[in-house]
Amino acid sequence: MVHSSGGTGIVMLNLGGPRGLDDVGPFLERLFEDREIIQLPAQGVLGPFIARRRTPKLRRTYESIGGASPLYHWTSEQGRGMAERLDRLSPETAPHRSYLAFRYTDPLTGEALRQMAADGVERAVAFSQYPQFSCSTTGSSLHELWRQVRHLGLESAFTWSVIDRWGSHPAFTGTVARKVAEGLQQFDEAVRDDVVVLFSAHSLPLRIINRGDAYLQEVAASVHEVMRHLDFSHEYALSFQADVGPVAWQGPSTASVIRALGRQGRRHVLIVGIVFTTDHLDTLHEIDHEFAEIAAEAGVTGFRRAPAPNDDPLFLDGLAEVVAAHLRSGEPCSRQFGLRCAGCTSTSCREIVRPVTSHRPAPVTTPADPR
Amino acid sequence: MVHSSGGTGIVMLNLGGPRGLDDVGPFLERLFEDREIIQLPAQGVLGPFIARRRTPKLRRTYESIGGASPLYHWTSEQGRGMAERLDRLSPETAPHRSYLAFRYTDPLTGEALRQMAADGVERAVAFSQYPQFSCSTTGSSLHELWRQVRHLGLESAFTWSVIDRWGSHPAFTGTVARKVAEGLQQFDEAVRDDVVVLFSAHSLPLRIINRGDAYLQEVAASVHEVMRHLDFSHEYALSFQADVGPVAWQGPSTASVIRALGRQGRRHVLIVGIVFTTDHLDTLHEIDHEFAEIAAEAGVTGFRRAPAPNDDPLFLDGLAEVVAAHLRSGEPCSRQFGLRCAGCTSTSCREIVRPVTSHRPAPVTTPADPR
Repeated sequence: MVHSSGGTGIVMLNLGGPRGLDDVGPFLERLFEDREIIQLPAQGVLGPFIARRRTPKLRRTYESIGGASPLYHWTSEQGRGMAERLDRLSPETAPHRSYLAFRYTDPLTGEALRQMAADGVERAVAFSQYPQFSCSTTGSSLHELWRQVRHLGLESAFTWSVIDRWGSHPAFTGTVARKVAEGLQQFDEAVRDDVVVLFSAHSLPLRIINRGDAYLQEVAASVHEVMRHLDFSHEYALSFQADVGPVAWQGPSTASVIRALGRQGRRHVLIVGIVFTTDHLDTLHEIDHEFAEIAAEAGVTGFRRAPAPNDDPLFLDGLAEVVAAHLRSGEPCSRQFGLRCAGCTSTSCREIVRPVTSHRPAPVTTPADPR
Repeated sequence: MVHSSGGTGIVMLNLGGPRGLDDVGPFLERLFEDREIIQLPAQGVLGPFIARRRTPKLRRTYESIGGASPLYHWTSEQGRGMAERLDRLSPETAPHRSYLAFRYTDPLTGEALRQMAADGVERAVAFSQYPQFSCSTTGSSLHELWRQVRHLGLESAFTWSVIDRWGSHPAFTGTVARKVAEGLQQFDEAVRDDVVVLFSAHSLPLRIINRGDAYLQEVAASVHEVMRHLDFSHEYALSFQADVGPVAWQGPSTASVIRALGRQGRRHVLIVGIVFTTDHLDTLHEIDHEFAEIAAEAGVTGFRRAPAPNDDPLFLDGLAEVVAAHLRSGEPCSRQFGLRCAGCTSTSCREIVRPVTSHRPAPVTTPADPR
């Protein structure tokens, strides 16, 4: 592989979160403008209208967790730690620089691209910080990335590859397993064996599930891998949170599961975020406040949360390993990235602008006993 | 472990299927009487009524696949092959005898229990032939098992343990992976790389999913493990079939995914049953006829099905390994079996009549880097 003197730029794609209360309004406006997540009639008018109506409530929620989302802080730290490690791990692709590209708040994607161009980066990796693939998250971020590349006339500035999913990679599942183990230590030894480990994922509307989005199967695969790291030491379940509004969502809902476990007399629940790598509103507000309250009412007297990966040094090692392996592979994306959602009608889905050339060997199809 | 001279009885729990056209009526009647699957007002009247109305159509469907379900044949062969192998693999628990206990057709559970008593069996294993756990399948069969044990006054005749789930065991996932590889061989080498591997599972009503049934996460875990055996060599997706009637089912539906892949111009699809170990109506009729027709109409010109495990000798080895490992463990069930569906209100769920004593060690909760 030939690498330019500009080294490697790693673009950390994420949703973003308000860095102050005045960012809440613009955050919601961008969210309700995103047709990959929400489809409204007359979206250009109705989207901003709904966003404005919801802003005061969401401002109060952010106020309750200190006035800002910690997503910027943690993702910056992760990018910095990862890039340092990559310089050691993969000197042939150094220097490595990380860039944040948030979907709904500053720093937005265009900012990342302009900075990359200024830094002389030529080899670029779009690294989704959503470990499991969904068109509504990673898909939306990638669409925005290519739109901005074109908008800024940077089509020939960079050679791209994409880390589109890594939810089953030990860098992620091994970290979450350690966090589950840490979480279990918060329980008294006498009851630790009785703890139900409840994995909670951001839900998706059934409309998206039913068009064949990969999210559900990938989240369940993450849960399975985490439990395998733990040798299936505890009872566990998967449920879904953040199901708001009038549409039908994938269930079971985390709130209903907590209530129901309480009714069954289960007293000890460790809740584990399984689709984000940092603390954010789902953990700091919905889990730590709303669900904690629901748990207390339901008689779940021991309700704890496993820490998020955040800046755990072993997790930063893992991020660097994911990128280093990706760079070594010479692949533009995962094989699975080629499969659009069955119900997808967008022809630009799965586009990569100016991709690296694939070195993928012919697939293994010879029967062999894999046991 | 002390074992009786009666050796070990392995009860193969399965749904069953009509062995002749006259069995179709009683099969449907028992199905519509099963409150673990279907809940109707005035079920004792309405159930048989619906069953009678549906009988003629289902008779015609069975006529089209030769007048009977092959489930009895294959499950018998599997039980026989497994028991022979177990005698060699685990002489200390020999002799091993397998018994079929079907939920909706002969041989019913009571018949198995009577035969076991006549054979002098004392150590009994309830081995669910549904690899992934659902209360609507394995749960229903176990409920029926304990009901019949009591009904026949056999509460102290046997010491029981349960193999309640094994959908991630290499005996199953390794076999399915080999069957996928065999299926891929049916495609011309020039197009083999483009084949979409479509895993199809029997669907469940969202009502059951939303009360916290483990099925969804376990099916997705099976898919993940199968693809891992194949080194993720092809694009793949998971969809759900057999969604009939007016209730809402877990999606995406296999039929809609096949149609949509055709619309996208995908020409080659290998469909893989992921929740049954034998051929039955889902494969021989729904996939091989209905879906094949849908595929042809949608332009999926290369539509093939991976063979079912049936009596594949390596699969029979695997069944024996699953049981041998279970017997060695001395455990009455999986740890996960202890967790009822969150929304479950039945207090008899997770019962085991006269279980073997657990040898389970304290769970591993010490943090360690699992990578």
